[in-house]
Amino acid sequence: MLQYNLSEYLSNIDKSLFIITDSNVERLVIPLLKSKIELDDLPRYVVPAGEESKNINTLNDIWNWLAQSGANRSSILLNIGGGMISDLGGFAAATYMRGIDYANVPTTILGAVDAAVGGKTALNLGALKNQVGAFHNPSAVFLLPETFKTLPDAELFSGFGEILKYGLIASPSLYRRMLEPESFLHNPETLSPLVSECISIKERIVNEDPLEKGVRKILNFGHTAGHAFESLAMEQGKPVPHGVAVAHGLMVELILSHTILGFPSAELYPLAMSLKEYWPKLSAQCKDNEKLISYMTHDKKNREKGQINFTLLQNLADPLIDQTADPDEISTALDIYRDLVL
Amino acid sequence: MLQYNLSEYLSNIDKSLFIITDSNVERLVIPLLKSKIELDDLPRYVVPAGEESKNINTLNDIWNWLAQSGANRSSILLNIGGGMISDLGGFAAATYMRGIDYANVPTTILGAVDAAVGGKTALNLGALKNQVGAFHNPSAVFLLPETFKTLPDAELFSGFGEILKYGLIASPSLYRRMLEPESFLHNPETLSPLVSECISIKERIVNEDPLEKGVRKILNFGHTAGHAFESLAMEQGKPVPHGVAVAHGLMVELILSHTILGFPSAELYPLAMSLKEYWPKLSAQCKDNEKLISYMTHDKKNREKGQINFTLLQNLADPLIDQTADPDEISTALDIYRDLVL
Repeated sequence: MLQYNLSEYLSNIDKSLFIITDSNVERLVIPLLKSKIELDDLPRYVVPAGEESKNINTLNDIWNWLAQSGANRSSILLNIGGGMISDLGGFAAATYMRGIDYANVPTTILGAVDAAVGGKTALNLGALKNQVGAFHNPSAVFLLPETFKTLPDAELFSGFGEILKYGLIASPSLYRRMLEPESFLHNPETLSPLVSECISIKERIVNEDPLEKGVRKILNFGHTAGHAFESLAMEQGKPVPHGVAVAHGLMVELILSHTILGFPSAELYPLAMSLKEYWPKLSAQCKDNEKLISYMTHDKKNREKGQINFTLLQNLADPLIDQTADPDEISTALDIYRDLVL
Repeated sequence: MLQYNLSEYLSNIDKSLFIITDSNVERLVIPLLKSKIELDDLPRYVVPAGEESKNINTLNDIWNWLAQSGANRSSILLNIGGGMISDLGGFAAATYMRGIDYANVPTTILGAVDAAVGGKTALNLGALKNQVGAFHNPSAVFLLPETFKTLPDAELFSGFGEILKYGLIASPSLYRRMLEPESFLHNPETLSPLVSECISIKERIVNEDPLEKGVRKILNFGHTAGHAFESLAMEQGKPVPHGVAVAHGLMVELILSHTILGFPSAELYPLAMSLKEYWPKLSAQCKDNEKLISYMTHDKKNREKGQINFTLLQNLADPLIDQTADPDEISTALDIYRDLVL
């Protein structure tokens, strides 16, 4: 499903194509692509950049634009952008005429390794992230590593966080390469083989469990704590990139993996050192423990009210889904995390 | 999947249930059900009755109500109402947290034989009927024939139209029973076996083709012309019930079946006589032919621009999908229809 030649794809297709993108991509990436690919003949809808656009009003605007532009059941949506665009455009494709085909062209590393693959599409419902959506697989994903050089550092780190996760759950060598992010910061195109490996890992897991009934939850590693960090930062008016919150969430959940499943303690330090030395910091103090745990309690991954669900590791590349931790254990893990990283 | 005992279902279920209904059902049907079924403990969202509610704003309200009421991934939506409610509630279930379970309790005959079964959920997009939606199968459908006696005649005829269709495409005996609607008008509970037969026919066809890639289009018989009649009536400010428009659409498409596939002409007269004698009339004059054909041209069932797609019959219970007719043939069929029926 992963492809590299968008130009060839476009010249061979005999169906009507509609592009969804955002204002940042329109400004920074589209000019880059235009030098190689004929895009101007295709109708293009430009959403204001930013997570705030991932809402029902934008979806309604896209639906109406598609209808007015004559999109039909055999039309194809081409989502060019980061995770916001593939979530939003994917959901538009999942629902327009009860589902049309779409392809993703991720322009961020986070988008490439996370949102662009696996068919999870979504909208936010007010403050509730990805509260609504649908499972709808893209028919193709195009990797264009040259677009990565348009990304600011914060966005690069966001991708690095998810790459760390893939390494931890499935590929120790990938994990160890990502512990040293410096060179990739300066030359993001060299991330291409790492990104491809992440996409392969994700495709393999998703194919086993397309509707997230079981093993797919492996991909949630780091995300229960990560989403809590993300929500806290948002509430504090200092939002952090998703993958940065996830990187710190990975640390918290590695500590829980140690206390609950006996994950080897020696393996906690390389990640702690990397976060401390290279990564953007989070502001999460002792007094925030209660609030962070409350966010985790309300995470929609929990099946039973009041229970907090995690994916944890027994060892590197050896995850176990459907683990639970009680508030005391989580609070202790957060304290240890602060000692190690902040 | 078809079930009769809602009370037993509710007392055996250990998941959280949320009811979606409309203001007519709330007033007329819920009191009837309450005498037999414990409903008051369940959270209930009441949508204003009428097709106008089947839009993105109501969907947004339902999503927010579900989130505020604590609905989670294992919650179940119970849609009590006609096709508007099962379309809307079904789409809410298809998209809330990327899909939760739901059950339909159709309170109209049209809803029971059409919208409640088969997993097609939808919203209207302005004037575009069912332009967005998703395929999402209900986990159960409850038939409560006692609710049918709350229905006005126009609503009963609307169901009769779809029953006629099932008879024509799959069961000549069912078709012939429905040509004499008088007794059912006076005693709608006696429709129960006919409704069950329609549901069985629909389930059989839908199971063969859940995503409407092929044979499911059999169910579209009568609907290309029917939707055009419905749109014309709407535009004239004299809306007609869906099933009444379909009944007349069936007549037009039987005539096309005769001219294009040699459907036996003798079989045209019983339906024409029934429509003429018993059914609500439509206002469709010669001068409207062009507009009706234009509606058919824009029907979303067409795959190719400008081509008009029909399901037609070679004989009773012998349908052929993916037939096309040109504007002249359709215009002639509309003229013959007027001669026979109006």
